[in-house]
Amino acid sequence: MESIKKYSITRIQSQNIIDEEDNIIVEYPLTIYINEEEFITLLCSPNSLKYLTVGFLNSEGIIDSKDDIEEVTISEEKGIACVHLKSNKDLLKKLAKKRTVTSGCGKGATFYDVIDSPKTKKINAIEVLGKEEVISLVEEFNKKSDLFISTGGVHSCALCKNNEIIMFEEDIARHNALDKILGRAFLEDIKFEDKIILTSGRITSEILIKIAKRGIPVVISRSAPTNLAIDTARQLNILLIGFARGEKMNVYSNHIK
Amino acid sequence: MESIKKYSITRIQSQNIIDEEDNIIVEYPLTIYINEEEFITLLCSPNSLKYLTVGFLNSEGIIDSKDDIEEVTISEEKGIACVHLKSNKDLLKKLAKKRTVTSGCGKGATFYDVIDSPKTKKINAIEVLGKEEVISLVEEFNKKSDLFISTGGVHSCALCKNNEIIMFEEDIARHNALDKILGRAFLEDIKFEDKIILTSGRITSEILIKIAKRGIPVVISRSAPTNLAIDTARQLNILLIGFARGEKMNVYSNHIK
Repeated sequence: MESIKKYSITRIQSQNIIDEEDNIIVEYPLTIYINEEEFITLLCSPNSLKYLTVGFLNSEGIIDSKDDIEEVTISEEKGIACVHLKSNKDLLKKLAKKRTVTSGCGKGATFYDVIDSPKTKKINAIEVLGKEEVISLVEEFNKKSDLFISTGGVHSCALCKNNEIIMFEEDIARHNALDKILGRAFLEDIKFEDKIILTSGRITSEILIKIAKRGIPVVISRSAPTNLAIDTARQLNILLIGFARGEKMNVYSNHIK
Repeated sequence: MESIKKYSITRIQSQNIIDEEDNIIVEYPLTIYINEEEFITLLCSPNSLKYLTVGFLNSEGIIDSKDDIEEVTISEEKGIACVHLKSNKDLLKKLAKKRTVTSGCGKGATFYDVIDSPKTKKINAIEVLGKEEVISLVEEFNKKSDLFISTGGVHSCALCKNNEIIMFEEDIARHNALDKILGRAFLEDIKFEDKIILTSGRITSEILIKIAKRGIPVVISRSAPTNLAIDTARQLNILLIGFARGEKMNVYSNHIK
């Protein structure tokens, strides 16, 4: 399977606005089954899937040697890795332990039903957002990140209204930075439908879905989006802007003034 | 709690080698308990912890409105968020569903016992690695990333031996790129004790522990490490190099020629 897909996007560079094809990185859900039971869904690039499956299970402590494995079959079209482990008591015990110890991470599980979910409605775009506003928001955003400037090791996230940053959070993980913003807004009863999310991190489907579930109509990132994020943004009418740096930006869905 | 700690590091810039203090981003484990039961451990920056807790639970679909929450108490020193939800049937049903649907992600669960685990031994450093070798490995590494050059949206990871890249993988997630490398080496019976891991991604404790478990003595990253990753590398005698870009690099643990 290809790891890149072509998408029509709008590339903006100060006064130049060009519609063109761009290479977008593919995000691919791979569901691992162990001895016929669903174990986890990893969101990944669709290559070296057998290596990923085995490496992940070894990292998680499920398998320790090649002798633990009876067979690993990858069905690339279906997005499935079927793992058969030798039925040995230790292995099955480890598997049972993993199933209860680790919980709540939600990888993949959130994905499949979100677009059809009644909570995720098509979103009305903000009419007033133009490229000048995006450029000035990103400039303000970059200046605010004290931790990044000092360590280079964090992601930032901001909530904006009327072209002003009203909340700003930083974290070592891009998901956490976003959850901090969304948690604060939740506790302060902030309405989301006229807000903008600004983030330093890449936009994967999980990030986009977190934002879509709240009904936020605009996402601006300094980094790249995946194809699943673009597809979801287009379905839900979310304005998705990536690679927003200086006077440049790419518009992947919806449009700006 | 501070989000930054000072560490003594060695900064190399072509011919200059300087020992100095550097600002390192803090990685902090926050364990969320719901109604007295352990739910998940998030690795995060130690600020806005109440927002993170509430935002995460809302993102995961555990809570839908403020009325679901009885109380959230953060114990910053212990790294604990105690969440009391109103005992209502729907909520408890959702919680039970979450516990079984999502599994295997291993966030945090791997962390606590790894340093004391008999599998994670102190590691013998590779004697021959000098800064010239690091510079040339990183140069080769950067050229190899076709997907990154084409999309800007992936992480790369490589396994190196005798100053040559012998395996190279790319993925939208830095954990997956590393697991692909480790999985391939596992299937091909590659010994790890004389190898080097090169990665484009940040080095958090989870990444470092994956590498340490295999007994790999050297990790080189284009990006920043967290303090927990540095602490673990120092305890296990792993050579940890970050911000390896052009002729520059920072040495955080152990030393090079």
